Amino acid sequence: MFDFNYYTPTQVVFGRNTEQRVAELIRRFGGTKVLIQYGGGSVVRSGLLQRVTDSLDAAGIPYVALGGAVPNPRLSLVYQGIELCKKEHVDFLLAVGGGSAIDSAKAIGYGVASGGDVWDFYDYKRKATACLPLGVILTLAATGSEMSDSSVITREEGWVKRGYNSDLGRPRFAIMNPELTMTLPDYQTACGCTDIMMHTMERYFTNGGNMEITDAIAEGLLRTVKANAEILAKDPKNYDARAEVMWAGSLSHNGLTGCGSDGGDWMTHKLEHELGGLYDVAHGAGLAAIWGSWARYVYKNCLPRFRRFAVNVMDIEPTGSDDEIALKGIEALEAFFRRIHMPTNLRELGVEPTEEELKDMAHKCAVGVNGEKGSARRLREADMLAIYRASM
Amino acid sequence: MFDFNYYTPTQVVFGRNTEQRVAELIRRFGGTKVLIQYGGGSVVRSGLLQRVTDSLDAAGIPYVALGGAVPNPRLSLVYQGIELCKKEHVDFLLAVGGGSAIDSAKAIGYGVASGGDVWDFYDYKRKATACLPLGVILTLAATGSEMSDSSVITREEGWVKRGYNSDLGRPRFAIMNPELTMTLPDYQTACGCTDIMMHTMERYFTNGGNMEITDAIAEGLLRTVKANAEILAKDPKNYDARAEVMWAGSLSHNGLTGCGSDGGDWMTHKLEHELGGLYDVAHGAGLAAIWGSWARYVYKNCLPRFRRFAVNVMDIEPTGSDDEIALKGIEALEAFFRRIHMPTNLRELGVEPTEEELKDMAHKCAVGVNGEKGSARRLREADMLAIYRASM
Repeated sequence: MFDFNYYTPTQVVFGRNTEQRVAELIRRFGGTKVLIQYGGGSVVRSGLLQRVTDSLDAAGIPYVALGGAVPNPRLSLVYQGIELCKKEHVDFLLAVGGGSAIDSAKAIGYGVASGGDVWDFYDYKRKATACLPLGVILTLAATGSEMSDSSVITREEGWVKRGYNSDLGRPRFAIMNPELTMTLPDYQTACGCTDIMMHTMERYFTNGGNMEITDAIAEGLLRTVKANAEILAKDPKNYDARAEVMWAGSLSHNGLTGCGSDGGDWMTHKLEHELGGLYDVAHGAGLAAIWGSWARYVYKNCLPRFRRFAVNVMDIEPTGSDDEIALKGIEALEAFFRRIHMPTNLRELGVEPTEEELKDMAHKCAVGVNGEKGSARRLREADMLAIYRASM
Repeated sequence: MFDFNYYTPTQVVFGRNTEQRVAELIRRFGGTKVLIQYGGGSVVRSGLLQRVTDSLDAAGIPYVALGGAVPNPRLSLVYQGIELCKKEHVDFLLAVGGGSAIDSAKAIGYGVASGGDVWDFYDYKRKATACLPLGVILTLAATGSEMSDSSVITREEGWVKRGYNSDLGRPRFAIMNPELTMTLPDYQTACGCTDIMMHTMERYFTNGGNMEITDAIAEGLLRTVKANAEILAKDPKNYDARAEVMWAGSLSHNGLTGCGSDGGDWMTHKLEHELGGLYDVAHGAGLAAIWGSWARYVYKNCLPRFRRFAVNVMDIEPTGSDDEIALKGIEALEAFFRRIHMPTNLRELGVEPTEEELKDMAHKCAVGVNGEKGSARRLREADMLAIYRASM
C-alpha cells in the first residue's frame, strides 16, 4: 500500500428540499456577491433557478447569473465568467447543475483568484494558487465534481479537453436533493451511473497493492450503483435509488475509493477524453464504449484485480482459471451496460472515427508523461491505438 | 432513509514518517503559538514528543506542552489547559496521542474560544460557538476522534462521563503514521479494534431504514477490522494490518458509516459510559463486555439487521430461521472478542458492581431523553438495568 492524503472538506447537505438552505450556506461560507453558473434550460424550465434566486433575494444576497455550461464545458464560457466576476466583484460561486456547471465554475474560480490565463492550469503550465469559494446545487449524479478536486474543460481551438486537479477547487458545500435528478432522460441517468462506477474502477484496477478497506468500500459502492442503475432503468422516479446513486457519485470521486492505491489507472478516462474532445459525446457513454476493449487489452497484466472484481462485484462463480473468471467479469459488466442501454463499442456510441482520427487521438492521448501511462498495464501510443481500433 | 449532513474537513496525511510534516501543517492552518496536549509517558519514552518539538523549534513555531491526558480524560486537566492557553496566547492546539489527548484538546479548544464554563457543553446546558483550531498526531487507533465531531470528558466530582459533539471541534489535520501504533500493548490494540467496530455497529443496528451504500461500506469496514484485529493479535508489528485498522478507525466515526440512518443506536456506548465513569475501565473492553448482553436483549426488535450482520459480516450460513441466524452472528462476534482477548461480560472485564451500583448506573444512563433511548430497541431504565444484570 501507498501513503496517501485524504481531504474532503465539502459540507454535504443531503435530502429532500435541501436547496432551500442555499442562502444560509452561502452566508456561512462568507459569500456576499454570487455568480450563479448553470447549464442549459432544464434548471430554468424546472423552476429550480427561480427558487434559488428567490432564496437569494429573500436573504438579501446579490447575484449575477451565467447560463450556457454545456457537456464538455467550454473555455470561452470560463473566460466570460471570469470577466463577469471581476466586473461585478463576485466573491462566491454557485454552480446549479451537474458536472459541466461545476467544472466551469471551478475554472472561473481559479481564473479570478489565481490570475493570468486560466488555461495554463489545464495545460500543465502553472498551478493555481487560489480559487473563489464555490457551492453546488447538484442536479445530476455523475461526475462527482461536487466533492472532488477535479475539473475538466474543453478549449474550442483544436478541441482539446483537459483536466486540472487541485484541493483549492473543492466545493465548500454541496446541496444534494435526489428529487432534482428525477426528470433526467434515462440515457443521462445511465451515463451518470457509468461515470460513477468508472471513477471507482479507475482507482481499483491497479498494480500497486491496494488497502483491503479501500477495496471493500469500492466493491460495496460498485455493487450498489450497479443494482440501483438497473432499478432506475425501469423506475426512474424511485427516490431511494436516486439517493443511492447520488451519494455514490460523490463518494466515488472524492478520493475515498483510492486511499492507499498508487493513484489509479485512469486510461479509460484518458482515452475517452480524446474522444470527447473530438466528438462531444456524453462522457459516461464514451467510457462504456471504450472500457471493454481496454479491459480485454490489459487484464492479463492485472489478473488478481480483474478476478476479484468478477467475483466480488459481478457475482461470477469463482470456478475455473483466473483468466476465465476475469473474462466472465468483463463480459458481465458489458452485459450490464447493455441492460442500461449504454454502448459497448464506438459503433454503438454512434461515432465512426477514421484510421487517421484514431491515430490522432492515440497520439494526443500519449502526450505528456514519458510515453507511458496507466497502472493495470503501462500503455504506449501503439497500445492506445490498438485499444481504439478494438473498440470500433 | 433519512436526510443527512456529512462534513469531514480534516486533512488526513497518512503513512510512514508523516509526523515530520507537523510544522508545515500547523502553519498551513494558521497556527503561530501551539499548546501540545499529550497523555502519559509513552510519547515521551518513544521519542515522538522530542521529534515533534524539534520540528516546531526548527520551524520557529513557539509552543507550550501539557501532559497528563489519561484514558477517560479529566475535566481538571481541561481547565488547566484553558488557563495555560489564555496565559500563553495559544492560537493552535496539537494533540499527540490517542482519543484521550484529542478529546482533552477539543474541550480546551471549546473552553478557550467559546468562553464560560466548558463543562456546560458536556452537561447539555449550552452549545459551543467556536473552537481553537486543532491538529492531531495519532498514536492509537480507536476512538476516531482524529476526524470526528465528538469528545468525551469525565468530571471527577461524582465521576460523570459525558460526550459533546460539534463540527467546530473536528481537527484541521490528522497525521496518521501506522508505525506509531506498533508499540502498543496487545490489550490496547484489541480495545481499539473493538471501539472501531462498535462505532460502526452503533450506526448499523437501527430501525430507521439505512442506505444500501452505507450498509455496504459499514460491512466492508467491519470485515476489514475483524480480519486485521486477528492478524495483529499474532503479529503486532504488521504494518499493513496497523494501517487498515488505523484508517478504519477514522472512517468508522467520521460520519461515513451512518449516512442516511436515523442517527444510530448508541446504547452500548451509553451503557459503557456509566461503567467507565465508575470504574475507569478501558473503553473498548467495556464495550465488548456489554455488547453481547445488549444484543441478546434487543435483537428480536431489529431482526433483519442482526440477520444481515450475521451473514454479511460474521460469515454465518443463511440457513435456518432468522432468529437462529441472528443469534449465531451474536455468538460469532463474542467468539471473535475472546480470540482477541476481549471480555464478553463484566466478570471477564474484572469489575463486580453491586446491585445498588447497577441500579445507579441504569438510572444515570436513562437520564435526559424522555426516559427512552436507542434505535435497535427503545430502552427504559428497567431495560438498561436488565442488560447490566445480564452482563454480570
